[in-house]
Amino acid sequence: MTHHGDALRSGETALKAQLPENAGLSFVGVIHTPFKTRDDCPRQGDMEGPDCTIELDPRLEPALEGIERFETLEILYWLHKARRDLLTQSPRSDGAVRGTFALRSPLRPNPIGTSRVRLVARTGNVLTVRGLDCLDGTPLLDIKPDRCGYTVQAPPKPAG
Amino acid sequence: MTHHGDALRSGETALKAQLPENAGLSFVGVIHTPFKTRDDCPRQGDMEGPDCTIELDPRLEPALEGIERFETLEILYWLHKARRDLLTQSPRSDGAVRGTFALRSPLRPNPIGTSRVRLVARTGNVLTVRGLDCLDGTPLLDIKPDRCGYTVQAPPKPAG
Repeated sequence: MTHHGDALRSGETALKAQLPENAGLSFVGVIHTPFKTRDDCPRQGDMEGPDCTIELDPRLEPALEGIERFETLEILYWLHKARRDLLTQSPRSDGAVRGTFALRSPLRPNPIGTSRVRLVARTGNVLTVRGLDCLDGTPLLDIKPDRCGYTVQAPPKPAG
Repeated sequence: MTHHGDALRSGETALKAQLPENAGLSFVGVIHTPFKTRDDCPRQGDMEGPDCTIELDPRLEPALEGIERFETLEILYWLHKARRDLLTQSPRSDGAVRGTFALRSPLRPNPIGTSRVRLVARTGNVLTVRGLDCLDGTPLLDIKPDRCGYTVQAPPKPAG
Protein backbone atom coordinates (compact mmCIF):
# COMPACT_ATOMS: atom_id res chain seq x y z
CA MET A 1 0.00 0.00 0.00
CA THR A 2 1.47 3.33 -0.92
CA HIS A 3 -1.19 5.57 0.64
CA HIS A 4 0.49 8.82 -0.30
CA GLY A 5 4.07 7.89 0.31
CA ASP A 6 5.66 10.01 2.99
CA ALA A 7 3.85 13.20 2.08
CA LEU A 8 1.09 14.34 4.41
CA ARG A 9 -2.19 15.60 3.00
CA SER A 10 -3.74 18.82 4.22
CA GLY A 11 -4.71 18.51 7.89
CA GLU A 12 -2.89 15.23 8.45
CA THR A 13 -0.49 14.92 11.37
CA ALA A 14 2.15 12.35 12.24
CA LEU A 15 4.06 11.32 15.33
CA LYS A 16 7.48 12.97 15.47
CA ALA A 17 9.26 10.06 17.14
CA GLN A 18 8.84 6.36 16.53
CA LEU A 19 7.11 4.45 19.34
CA PRO A 20 9.20 1.76 21.05
CA GLU A 21 8.50 -1.90 20.38
CA ASN A 22 7.12 -3.68 23.43
CA ALA A 23 6.13 -7.13 22.16
CA GLY A 24 6.71 -9.38 19.20
CA LEU A 25 4.30 -11.02 16.79
CA SER A 26 4.77 -14.31 14.97
CA PHE A 27 3.20 -14.75 11.58
CA VAL A 28 1.27 -18.02 11.74
CA GLY A 29 0.25 -18.30 8.10
CA VAL A 30 -0.58 -16.36 4.97
CA ILE A 31 -3.87 -15.10 3.52
CA HIS A 32 -4.68 -15.48 -0.16
CA THR A 33 -7.24 -13.12 -1.67
CA PRO A 34 -8.10 -11.98 -5.19
CA PHE A 35 -7.02 -8.45 -4.21
CA LYS A 36 -3.60 -7.78 -5.70
CA THR A 37 -3.42 -4.04 -5.15
CA ARG A 38 -4.77 -1.69 -2.52
CA ASP A 39 -7.27 -0.36 -5.07
CA ASP A 40 -8.63 -3.89 -5.57
CA CYS A 41 -9.44 -4.23 -1.87
CA PRO A 42 -13.04 -3.59 -0.89
CA ARG A 43 -13.52 -0.95 1.81
CA GLN A 44 -14.92 -3.65 4.04
CA GLY A 45 -15.20 -7.44 3.73
CA ASP A 46 -18.43 -9.03 2.49
CA MET A 47 -19.43 -12.45 3.77
CA GLU A 48 -21.04 -13.04 0.39
CA GLY A 49 -17.85 -11.96 -1.37
CA PRO A 50 -15.24 -14.07 -3.19
CA ASP A 51 -13.63 -17.16 -1.68
CA CYS A 52 -10.33 -16.45 0.03
CA THR A 53 -7.99 -18.96 1.64
CA ILE A 54 -6.14 -18.90 4.93
CA GLU A 55 -3.07 -21.12 4.81
CA LEU A 56 -1.97 -21.88 8.35
CA ASP A 57 1.61 -22.89 9.15
CA PRO A 58 1.31 -26.71 8.99
CA ARG A 59 3.03 -27.05 12.38
CA LEU A 60 -0.01 -25.32 13.90
CA GLU A 61 -2.65 -27.50 12.23
CA PRO A 62 -3.60 -29.24 15.50
CA ALA A 63 -4.77 -25.83 16.76
CA LEU A 64 -7.65 -25.97 14.23
CA GLU A 65 -9.24 -28.94 16.02
CA GLY A 66 -12.98 -28.26 16.27
CA ILE A 67 -12.96 -25.13 14.08
CA GLU A 68 -15.67 -26.61 11.82
CA ARG A 69 -18.20 -26.07 14.62
CA PHE A 70 -18.15 -22.34 13.91
CA GLU A 71 -19.82 -20.73 10.94
CA THR A 72 -18.33 -17.32 11.65
CA LEU A 73 -14.73 -16.63 12.58
CA GLU A 74 -12.75 -13.55 13.51
CA ILE A 75 -9.47 -13.22 11.60
CA LEU A 76 -6.56 -11.03 12.68
CA TYR A 77 -3.82 -10.14 10.24
CA TRP A 78 -0.83 -7.85 9.91
CA LEU A 79 -1.22 -4.95 7.50
CA HIS A 80 2.38 -5.26 6.47
CA LYS A 81 2.51 -2.34 4.07
CA ALA A 82 0.99 0.30 6.32
CA ARG A 83 2.79 3.31 7.75
CA ARG A 84 2.36 3.58 11.51
CA ASP A 85 2.94 7.20 12.42
CA LEU A 86 -0.27 8.98 11.37
CA LEU A 87 -2.28 10.63 14.14
CA THR A 88 -4.89 12.26 11.91
CA GLN A 89 -5.76 11.20 8.39
CA SER A 90 -7.71 12.28 5.36
CA PRO A 91 -8.30 8.92 3.70
CA ARG A 92 -10.42 10.17 0.85
CA SER A 93 -8.52 13.33 0.00
CA ASP A 94 -11.80 15.20 0.46
CA GLY A 95 -10.44 17.50 3.14
CA ALA A 96 -12.25 15.64 5.95
CA VAL A 97 -9.65 14.83 8.59
CA ARG A 98 -10.24 12.36 11.40
CA GLY A 99 -8.19 10.78 14.12
CA THR A 100 -6.60 7.43 13.32
CA PHE A 101 -8.58 5.73 16.10
CA ALA A 102 -11.85 7.07 14.64
CA LEU A 103 -11.07 5.28 11.36
CA ARG A 104 -10.63 1.64 10.33
CA SER A 105 -7.84 2.70 7.97
CA PRO A 106 -4.90 0.25 7.76
CA LEU A 107 -2.56 3.09 8.70
CA ARG A 108 -2.28 2.94 12.52
CA PRO A 109 0.34 2.53 15.27
CA ASN A 110 -0.27 -1.22 15.38
CA PRO A 111 -1.53 -2.12 11.91
CA ILE A 112 -3.63 -5.13 12.86
CA GLY A 113 -6.69 -5.80 10.72
CA THR A 114 -9.72 -7.68 11.99
CA SER A 115 -12.47 -9.23 9.88
CA ARG A 116 -15.50 -11.41 10.47
CA VAL A 117 -15.61 -14.20 7.92
CA ARG A 118 -17.85 -17.09 7.03
CA LEU A 119 -16.09 -20.47 7.13
CA VAL A 120 -16.85 -22.24 3.85
CA ALA A 121 -14.55 -25.26 4.04
CA ARG A 122 -11.48 -26.70 5.69
CA THR A 123 -8.89 -28.94 4.07
CA GLY A 124 -6.11 -29.77 6.50
CA ASN A 125 -4.29 -26.56 7.34
CA VAL A 126 -6.20 -24.49 4.76
CA LEU A 127 -9.48 -22.68 5.46
CA THR A 128 -11.68 -21.31 2.69
CA VAL A 129 -13.55 -18.24 3.93
CA ARG A 130 -15.59 -15.28 2.69
CA GLY A 131 -15.46 -11.77 4.11
CA LEU A 132 -11.82 -10.71 3.92
CA ASP A 133 -10.80 -7.34 2.52
CA CYS A 134 -7.01 -7.55 2.71
CA LEU A 135 -4.26 -7.79 0.11
CA ASP A 136 -3.15 -11.13 -1.28
CA GLY A 137 -0.16 -12.31 0.75
CA THR A 138 -1.18 -10.65 4.02
CA PRO A 139 0.43 -12.35 7.06
CA LEU A 140 -1.99 -14.16 9.39
CA LEU A 141 -1.91 -13.42 13.13
CA ASP A 142 -4.86 -15.21 14.66
CA ILE A 143 -8.11 -17.11 14.12
CA LYS A 144 -10.84 -16.99 16.77
CA PRO A 145 -14.44 -18.13 16.91
CA ASP A 146 -16.58 -15.03 16.40
CA ARG A 147 -17.80 -13.52 19.66
CA CYS A 148 -21.43 -13.76 18.67
CA GLY A 149 -21.24 -17.35 17.49
CA TYR A 150 -19.30 -18.16 20.58
CA THR A 151 -21.98 -16.71 22.84
CA VAL A 152 -25.02 -18.39 21.37
CA GLN A 153 -23.41 -21.77 20.85
CA ALA A 154 -25.01 -24.50 22.95
CA PRO A 155 -22.65 -26.23 25.36
CA PRO A 156 -21.60 -29.71 24.25
CA LYS A 157 -23.84 -32.38 25.71
CA PRO A 158 -22.15 -34.82 28.05
CA ALA A 159 -21.79 -38.27 26.52
CA GLY A 160 -24.15 -40.93 27.83
CA MET B 1 -2.47 -15.33 34.46
CA THR B 2 -0.96 -18.58 35.57
CA HIS B 3 -3.24 -20.95 33.61
CA HIS B 4 -1.64 -24.13 34.87
CA GLY B 5 1.97 -23.04 34.86
CA ASP B 6 4.03 -25.09 32.49
CA ALA B 7 2.24 -28.37 33.09
CA LEU B 8 -0.05 -29.61 30.34
CA ARG B 9 -3.45 -31.02 31.20
CA SER B 10 -4.61 -34.30 29.75
CA GLY B 11 -4.99 -34.03 25.97
CA GLU B 12 -3.25 -30.67 25.71
CA THR B 13 -0.41 -30.24 23.23
CA ALA B 14 2.21 -27.53 22.80
CA LEU B 15 4.58 -26.39 20.09
CA LYS B 16 8.04 -27.87 20.56
CA ALA B 17 9.94 -24.88 19.20
CA GLN B 18 9.24 -21.22 19.70
CA LEU B 19 7.94 -19.38 16.63
CA PRO B 20 10.15 -16.59 15.27
CA GLU B 21 9.18 -12.95 15.80
CA ASN B 22 8.24 -11.24 12.56
CA ALA B 23 6.87 -7.85 13.63
CA GLY B 24 6.84 -5.59 16.65
CA LEU B 25 3.98 -4.07 18.59
CA SER B 26 3.98 -0.77 20.44
CA PHE B 27 1.83 -0.43 23.52
CA VAL B 28 -0.21 2.75 23.04
CA GLY B 29 -1.84 2.96 26.45
CA VAL B 30 -3.08 0.98 29.40
CA ILE B 31 -6.50 -0.44 30.28
CA HIS B 32 -7.94 -0.12 33.76
CA THR B 33 -10.61 -2.60 34.81
CA PRO B 34 -12.01 -3.78 38.16
CA PHE B 35 -10.61 -7.26 37.38
CA LYS B 36 -7.46 -7.77 39.44
CA THR B 37 -7.00 -11.51 38.95
CA ARG B 38 -7.76 -13.91 36.14
CA ASP B 39 -10.58 -15.38 38.22
CA ASP B 40 -12.18 -11.91 38.49
CA CYS B 41 -12.38 -11.59 34.69
CA PRO B 42 -15.73 -12.38 33.10
CA ARG B 43 -15.63 -15.05 30.38
CA GLN B 44 -16.74 -12.38 27.95
CA GLY B 45 -17.24 -8.61 28.18
CA ASP B 46 -20.71 -7.20 28.84
CA MET B 47 -21.65 -3.83 27.40
CA GLU B 48 -23.84 -3.32 30.47
CA GLY B 49 -20.93 -4.27 32.74
CA PRO B 50 -18.79 -2.03 34.96
CA ASP B 51 -17.09 1.13 33.73
CA CYS B 52 -13.51 0.58 32.61
CA THR B 53 -11.06 3.21 31.41
CA ILE B 54 -8.68 3.26 28.49
CA GLU B 55 -5.79 5.61 29.11
CA LEU B 56 -4.15 6.44 25.81
CA ASP B 57 -0.54 7.61 25.62
CA PRO B 58 -1.04 11.42 25.72
CA ARG B 59 1.22 11.85 22.67
CA LEU B 60 -1.44 9.99 20.67
CA GLU B 61 -4.42 12.04 21.87
CA PRO B 62 -4.87 13.74 18.45
CA ALA B 63 -5.66 10.29 17.03
CA LEU B 64 -8.93 10.29 19.05
CA GLU B 65 -10.34 13.19 16.99
CA GLY B 66 -13.95 12.34 16.12
CA ILE B 67 -14.15 9.20 18.29
CA GLU B 68 -17.26 10.52 20.06
CA ARG B 69 -19.26 9.90 16.89
CA PHE B 70 -19.14 6.17 17.59
CA GLU B 71 -21.23 4.48 20.25
CA THR B 72 -19.47 1.14 19.81
CA LEU B 73 -15.73 0.62 19.49
CA GLU B 74 -13.48 -2.35 18.92
CA ILE B 75 -10.57 -2.54 21.36
CA LEU B 76 -7.41 -4.59 20.80
CA TYR B 77 -5.07 -5.37 23.67
CA TRP B 78 -2.08 -7.51 24.51
CA LEU B 79 -2.73 -10.44 26.84
CA HIS B 80 0.63 -9.96 28.44
CA LYS B 81 0.49 -12.88 30.85
CA ALA B 82 -0.51 -15.58 28.39
CA ARG B 83 1.66 -18.49 27.30
CA ARG B 84 1.87 -18.76 23.53
CA ASP B 85 2.78 -22.35 22.75
CA LEU B 86 -0.47 -24.29 23.25
CA LEU B 87 -1.92 -26.02 20.18
CA THR B 88 -4.78 -27.79 21.95
CA GLN B 89 -6.29 -26.76 25.26
CA SER B 90 -8.65 -27.97 27.91
CA PRO B 91 -9.68 -24.65 29.44
CA ARG B 92 -12.16 -25.99 31.94
CA SER B 93 -10.28 -29.08 33.09
CA ASP B 94 -13.35 -31.08 32.08
CA GLY B 95 -11.46 -33.30 29.68
CA ALA B 96 -12.86 -31.53 26.60
CA VAL B 97 -9.90 -30.60 24.41
CA ARG B 98 -10.12 -28.14 21.54
CA GLY B 99 -7.73 -26.43 19.20
CA THR B 100 -6.44 -23.02 20.24
CA PHE B 101 -8.02 -21.41 17.15
CA ALA B 102 -11.41 -22.91 18.05
CA LEU B 103 -11.28 -21.10 21.40
CA ARG B 104 -11.21 -17.46 22.48
CA SER B 105 -8.79 -18.39 25.27
CA PRO B 106 -6.06 -15.80 25.97
CA LEU B 107 -3.45 -18.53 25.45
CA ARG B 108 -2.55 -18.35 21.73
CA PRO B 109 0.47 -17.80 19.48
CA ASN B 110 -0.28 -14.08 19.24
CA PRO B 111 -2.17 -13.25 22.45
CA ILE B 112 -4.22 -10.35 21.14
CA GLY B 113 -7.61 -9.83 22.74
CA THR B 114 -10.48 -8.09 20.96
CA SER B 115 -13.61 -6.68 22.57
CA ARG B 116 -16.59 -4.64 21.46
CA VAL B 117 -17.28 -1.87 23.95
CA ARG B 118 -19.77 0.92 24.45
CA LEU B 119 -18.17 4.36 24.63
CA VAL B 120 -19.57 6.07 27.72
CA ALA B 121 -17.42 9.20 27.92
CA ARG B 122 -14.17 10.79 26.82
CA THR B 123 -12.02 13.15 28.85
CA GLY B 124 -8.91 14.14 26.92
CA ASN B 125 -6.83 11.01 26.40
CA VAL B 126 -9.04 8.83 28.63
CA LEU B 127 -12.07 6.88 27.39
CA THR B 128 -14.63 5.39 29.75
CA VAL B 129 -16.12 2.25 28.23
CA ARG B 130 -18.18 -0.81 29.11
CA GLY B 131 -17.65 -4.30 27.74
CA LEU B 132 -14.05 -5.20 28.55
CA ASP B 133 -13.13 -8.53 30.11
CA CYS B 134 -9.36 -8.14 30.57
CA LEU B 135 -7.12 -7.77 33.59
CA ASP B 136 -6.42 -4.38 35.13
CA GLY B 137 -3.18 -3.07 33.64
CA THR B 138 -3.55 -4.76 30.25
CA PRO B 139 -1.54 -2.97 27.52
CA LEU B 140 -3.61 -1.27 24.81
CA LEU B 141 -2.86 -1.98 21.14
CA ASP B 142 -5.61 -0.32 19.13
CA ILE B 143 -8.99 1.41 19.11
CA LYS B 144 -11.22 1.19 16.02
CA PRO B 145 -14.80 2.14 15.25
CA ASP B 146 -16.84 -1.05 15.41
CA ARG B 147 -17.43 -2.61 11.98
CA CYS B 148 -21.18 -2.52 12.36
CA GLY B 149 -21.34 1.07 13.56
CA TYR B 150 -18.93 1.98 10.82
CA THR B 151 -21.11 0.48 8.11
CA VAL B 152 -24.41 2.04 9.01
CA GLN B 153 -23.07 5.45 9.88
CA ALA B 154 -24.35 8.23 7.61
CA PRO B 155 -21.68 10.20 5.76
CA PRO B 156 -21.02 13.63 7.27
CA LYS B 157 -23.05 16.37 5.63
CA PRO B 158 -21.06 19.03 3.83
CA ALA B 159 -21.18 22.38 5.61
CA GLY B 160 -23.38 25.04 4.07
